Amino acid sequence: MPRKKSPQSDRYHHGNLRAALLVTARQLLEENGVSALNLREIARRVGVTAPSAYHHFSGLEAIATALAELGFEELAQQMEAAPTNEKGRLMPSGLAYIAFARSNPALYRLMFGERFAAKFVDSDSLKMLRLRAYERVKSGLEKRVSTESIAPGALFLWSLIHGLALLTIDGQLRHEADPEAMIISVLRLAGTGLPPS
Amino acid sequence: MPRKKSPQSDRYHHGNLRAALLVTARQLLEENGVSALNLREIARRVGVTAPSAYHHFSGLEAIATALAELGFEELAQQMEAAPTNEKGRLMPSGLAYIAFARSNPALYRLMFGERFAAKFVDSDSLKMLRLRAYERVKSGLEKRVSTESIAPGALFLWSLIHGLALLTIDGQLRHEADPEAMIISVLRLAGTGLPPS
Repeated sequence: MPRKKSPQSDRYHHGNLRAALLVTARQLLEENGVSALNLREIARRVGVTAPSAYHHFSGLEAIATALAELGFEELAQQMEAAPTNEKGRLMPSGLAYIAFARSNPALYRLMFGERFAAKFVDSDSLKMLRLRAYERVKSGLEKRVSTESIAPGALFLWSLIHGLALLTIDGQLRHEADPEAMIISVLRLAGTGLPPS
Repeated sequence: MPRKKSPQSDRYHHGNLRAALLVTARQLLEENGVSALNLREIARRVGVTAPSAYHHFSGLEAIATALAELGFEELAQQMEAAPTNEKGRLMPSGLAYIAFARSNPALYRLMFGERFAAKFVDSDSLKMLRLRAYERVKSGLEKRVSTESIAPGALFLWSLIHGLALLTIDGQLRHEADPEAMIISVLRLAGTGLPPS
């Protein structure tokens, strides 16, 4: 496909315009939610024509997929960068996971929401990235539990942090005096279980 | 407001038409997802005019609120109806919760999704019903943990079942040979925590 020659797109190298569109899409998503995502509006904000934007993204689903990929990459990176403490890295990784969701609530909802779920199922790169986040959860378990306990243990941890992330960005901790302390208390229960009666 | 006298609405008593619209809305939701919810289509399926439907629901947000109310009522009822076993009712309630989400995936997503979240925050009845589901989780804990552990314990349980419900209806257990056994293993970890290394 020949390179577009509109004056606007001359302002960007090919890769730069794609990146600029993604940055703007992400801002728009966090400002106004997933229903506000619109490729023409993204192009307008970046200052290029709609056809220049369509040159990089075939439509809304393509840009949503790219945003979700970006989100899973950042989430995995932030979990991997979490420090190891004396008890391993489950708590730091869990805190990094919740922090990512709280800093990027609309992106987090997009990554796991149903709006583009049918499209995401078709994306091999998203499947890989989602698996990588899951592997991050699992790897913390491997030294800790027997082989047959890894799968339920990983699903237990992922359910807990996914549910806690969503309830937190839904405002469930809105009236909590110290939300961080509550998050730590909840995550700590993953290691101990509920106290017996 | 005078009662509508269109021939269609004569087929229904006031309450019956409201109920019929809700039943159809719920079917449409589960068939095609939240984006397919449309008051005109619901009216068409029920066989009444759009104005007859608007007489009961001012718009899409009103019908979504009514559907979420219905969902929270059923969820609480099903958790309350769960049998008590020798260890209390946390496991049976948890299984009832997951079963509700699996049987009503689109309704469950609607109840907790962001699509109507801003509207739901304004609904006192929804606030009450959501609180009732939460109280149901808490009441299983009251005999089990100290007063100061109830809040983190309840948020721990709710995060776990909410996350597990969503990952399950997202297809995370799709390749599991025995999804029910996996769900039980995960919920059991709420009582024990992850095994120590």
